Amino acid sequence: MADLRSKFVKVYSVLKEDLFRDPAFEFTDNDRQWVEEMLDYNVPGGKLNRGLSVLDSYKLLIEGRELTDEEVFLASSLGWCIEWLQAYFLVLDDIMDGSHTRRGQPCWFRLPKVGLIATNDGVLLRNHIPRILKQHFRGKPYYVDLLDLFNEVEFQTASGQMIDLITTLEGEKDLLKYTVSLHRRIVQYKTAYYSFYLPVACALLMAGENLDNHTDVKDILVEMGTYFQVQDDYLDCFGDPETIGKIGTDIEDFKCSWLVVKALELCNEDQKKLLNENYGKPDPSNVAKVKALYNELNLQDVFAEYESKSHGRLTAAIGAHPRQSVQAVLKSFLGKIYKRQK
Amino acid sequence: MADLRSKFVKVYSVLKEDLFRDPAFEFTDNDRQWVEEMLDYNVPGGKLNRGLSVLDSYKLLIEGRELTDEEVFLASSLGWCIEWLQAYFLVLDDIMDGSHTRRGQPCWFRLPKVGLIATNDGVLLRNHIPRILKQHFRGKPYYVDLLDLFNEVEFQTASGQMIDLITTLEGEKDLLKYTVSLHRRIVQYKTAYYSFYLPVACALLMAGENLDNHTDVKDILVEMGTYFQVQDDYLDCFGDPETIGKIGTDIEDFKCSWLVVKALELCNEDQKKLLNENYGKPDPSNVAKVKALYNELNLQDVFAEYESKSHGRLTAAIGAHPRQSVQAVLKSFLGKIYKRQK
Repeated sequence: MADLRSKFVKVYSVLKEDLFRDPAFEFTDNDRQWVEEMLDYNVPGGKLNRGLSVLDSYKLLIEGRELTDEEVFLASSLGWCIEWLQAYFLVLDDIMDGSHTRRGQPCWFRLPKVGLIATNDGVLLRNHIPRILKQHFRGKPYYVDLLDLFNEVEFQTASGQMIDLITTLEGEKDLLKYTVSLHRRIVQYKTAYYSFYLPVACALLMAGENLDNHTDVKDILVEMGTYFQVQDDYLDCFGDPETIGKIGTDIEDFKCSWLVVKALELCNEDQKKLLNENYGKPDPSNVAKVKALYNELNLQDVFAEYESKSHGRLTAAIGAHPRQSVQAVLKSFLGKIYKRQK
Repeated sequence: MADLRSKFVKVYSVLKEDLFRDPAFEFTDNDRQWVEEMLDYNVPGGKLNRGLSVLDSYKLLIEGRELTDEEVFLASSLGWCIEWLQAYFLVLDDIMDGSHTRRGQPCWFRLPKVGLIATNDGVLLRNHIPRILKQHFRGKPYYVDLLDLFNEVEFQTASGQMIDLITTLEGEKDLLKYTVSLHRRIVQYKTAYYSFYLPVACALLMAGENLDNHTDVKDILVEMGTYFQVQDDYLDCFGDPETIGKIGTDIEDFKCSWLVVKALELCNEDQKKLLNENYGKPDPSNVAKVKALYNELNLQDVFAEYESKSHGRLTAAIGAHPRQSVQAVLKSFLGKIYKRQK
């Protein structure tokens, strides 16, 4: 797998060079310099899990046969398209959230020479995806399905982001708007489709599959993505900052986190009052009161139970799938996230 | 044509309703309310020239035969996709430019409840286009070409916006970076492709044409779009504010306008110094000095000559086109903009 990773990483520069040769736009040295710096700053610096999983999934789907160089290149290109998509969302999310750092460096829009030009850079990142797809997949029988897939998943992600944004507006007036079912909808649309379903769907298309025959796979992956985000919400409060690499601020930021919706579900009237008075405030004393309440409600145990049930449900659903190779893909995803500490 | 316009306008509500039924995202009443208000605020309030011209062009291409109801609906839908695209660009441009009003009302992001959520709303507008295309064109033989077309034109527009943004950064340090050829590149990519080429290309695809056979049409329309933007730049300074409906501020805003690049081309060293000292400053006395220089350089005459030459070149190129119906489309576009006062 280390070998596949290094092959994947190398594809990034090839795709970048090809973009600069796209016949639809003539780059001057000046333009090229801006775009190249913007790409290098925003695209390749993450963990690359989403991108790499296209390659991993494709390998499992074709049942371990050695990949040709072309297959490695194509699966990696689709993986990079997902990394580009992620970069686009993050650049714009950071502007909307007024964030300061991302992946250990200042957010792109925080650089003095960039500022709100970052909005257009986000748009450019998004626009590079169809350029990459056209350059490398235009002749493939699944080309139109790829375009449809990326369009559908981007629409779902942007819609999830919308629910999240307008919910926070309303939650700030009335915390009771935050519910388990709302949390589920946000997470499903905003995270699960693009992080879990999209990589596998790309691999399935490359393997010649019709996605209409794989709605069961989609359902399982969306469920897994939801579980992944619940872990994220849990670790934000109960994880080890050293291990997860950041200090969580979901409570201060008024986030519609799984912990707060579970707390609201479980708490009595007095506790609800306490939550209302202390959630979403920057002062450490308010945050401490919320954390104390989470402990009082045994949210650590509630989470452990959720995790175990979720794992059981997913394992059963995967086991029921008729194809071994598809089972292998799903098991590999689940194995990577089950009981993760970061 | 008045009849076609009212038919076109009616299609907007149909497309909107269909969006809310898209199987990729389940709208709650809350979501629907937000999106509907956002669409009504940003999509239909313009002059609708771009959208209508798909319908007009298609009618000319099929040589005056009565359009079926389906043809009216499909051509109008493509026209509305262009209006959606325009709304997406405008919502984001207004954020980047820090604008205050648009189409006689506050910019969307200026509404207190909206703010930077407008960034995601812009993204949503963009994402509605492939939803509309999928819902209404998925079975058409030209579906994939439509997707490619919208992707290509959006990429060109965003790239043009990028050149404009980074040029202004540099122009503020050294006005001499503003040149006629740079102006031409910005205008071509940022405006001409989506405003002039895109509507006709949509109509050509609907009429069963292969766009690869129409690069001459593209060249003519991009040239026409360039001429259109030069007029815009001219009217910003020399037009009647009553007639054009706004007071131009290109000089104050340090815009890479056709007037300033022409002035730089024609002026001597002393005049260059004066421009350098007065361009891009908010004070009326600075603006007055720039305008006085424009008059000294006879830019009104220079423009009249440009307009006449441009018209001559375009007329000749149109006359050389082998097909009467295509000539009719191009002549109709040119007729609408030649010597316009607003």
